[in-house]
Amino acid sequence: MRTHIPDATVARLPVYLRCLSMRAGTGTCSSQDLARTAGVNSAQVRKDLSFLDAQGVRGVGYDVDELRLEIRKALGLTHEFPIVIAGAGDLGRALANYGGFREWGFSVGAILDVDARKIGSRIGDSVVESMDDLEAIVAERNIEIGIVATPAIHAQTAAERLVGAGVRSILNFAPTVISVEAAEIRRVDLSTELQILAYHLQERSGN
Amino acid sequence: MRTHIPDATVARLPVYLRCLSMRAGTGTCSSQDLARTAGVNSAQVRKDLSFLDAQGVRGVGYDVDELRLEIRKALGLTHEFPIVIAGAGDLGRALANYGGFREWGFSVGAILDVDARKIGSRIGDSVVESMDDLEAIVAERNIEIGIVATPAIHAQTAAERLVGAGVRSILNFAPTVISVEAAEIRRVDLSTELQILAYHLQERSGN
Repeated sequence: MRTHIPDATVARLPVYLRCLSMRAGTGTCSSQDLARTAGVNSAQVRKDLSFLDAQGVRGVGYDVDELRLEIRKALGLTHEFPIVIAGAGDLGRALANYGGFREWGFSVGAILDVDARKIGSRIGDSVVESMDDLEAIVAERNIEIGIVATPAIHAQTAAERLVGAGVRSILNFAPTVISVEAAEIRRVDLSTELQILAYHLQERSGN
Repeated sequence: MRTHIPDATVARLPVYLRCLSMRAGTGTCSSQDLARTAGVNSAQVRKDLSFLDAQGVRGVGYDVDELRLEIRKALGLTHEFPIVIAGAGDLGRALANYGGFREWGFSVGAILDVDARKIGSRIGDSVVESMDDLEAIVAERNIEIGIVATPAIHAQTAAERLVGAGVRSILNFAPTVISVEAAEIRRVDLSTELQILAYHLQERSGN
């Protein structure tokens, strides 16, 4: 039986998981520790974690390894998710080589490009394949998540092809907005955190 | 006179800005529109925007261009921020070429590497320079923001060198935790959004 977890909590669970990963093997962790690292208050942490099976002990905290497992279970990260990356330019290559994916059960199922000069080249453990083979690859390898890492002008077309091939969730790294029916799309804007840093920098300069 | 804006609002302003950028030139935008796109409620939007000089009109909404300007002013994005990128591998190259930075006033002041084979190569409008010249480059070009795009094992050293050279704010893209005194560090974990997608995917499969 799965509990529905509110979206705002779902968005914070990966943050808690990241905090806990830094503490793997250290025993216990308090809601205050998690709150400080995640930038929320500890009542919020306790409320978020109340959706999981994890039980904190008053005055002691949560068992780190147990809480990691419960969060991974809640997020559905206990099985492997192969992903397909559309675009083998700098960004696609960087994502294919990114060390932070495997830890959470994501593996590069395929990286594709339309450019014949890139097809066949090796990136980490993968070999760039042709976008022409997208449909067959997605079906054979049972891929449900796609990453758009094309130039902005090709992002919409790439997303439509991914969804046409059966991909159900798309993460868009291209600096543009894409819109496709029948798939969930999330966008990563690499400049968002820079904007926050710039604000804090200016505020400190003003003081 | 600058108003202090709460951190949670600061974190949402770039999201509103992104929504508004999609509507540039469309006239007005209601708090409900912004709320829907940003994933918060409209009372929260109105509260967040109350920290700015922008005035919404009841039943009409906010003037898109005026609100963009006010958010940019609040975030300190009205002047140019040159950034230095440490690491000219796939990720550094992708960031140097990323079309989403310039729009918000960020420019690539320098991209540096320790690898002699990369130094001198061209990436977009930049030429890769040597990390040996970091101190001189930061001072001459008045750079306050650095991006760590090195492999995880070199990230801490790179961050320390950036701060030693005078950089005050660091965005860490390496999949590891770094810690440096006297600088603000924010981390971008490229797998966070994938984890949220995986949750929604599993939830839909369960229904």
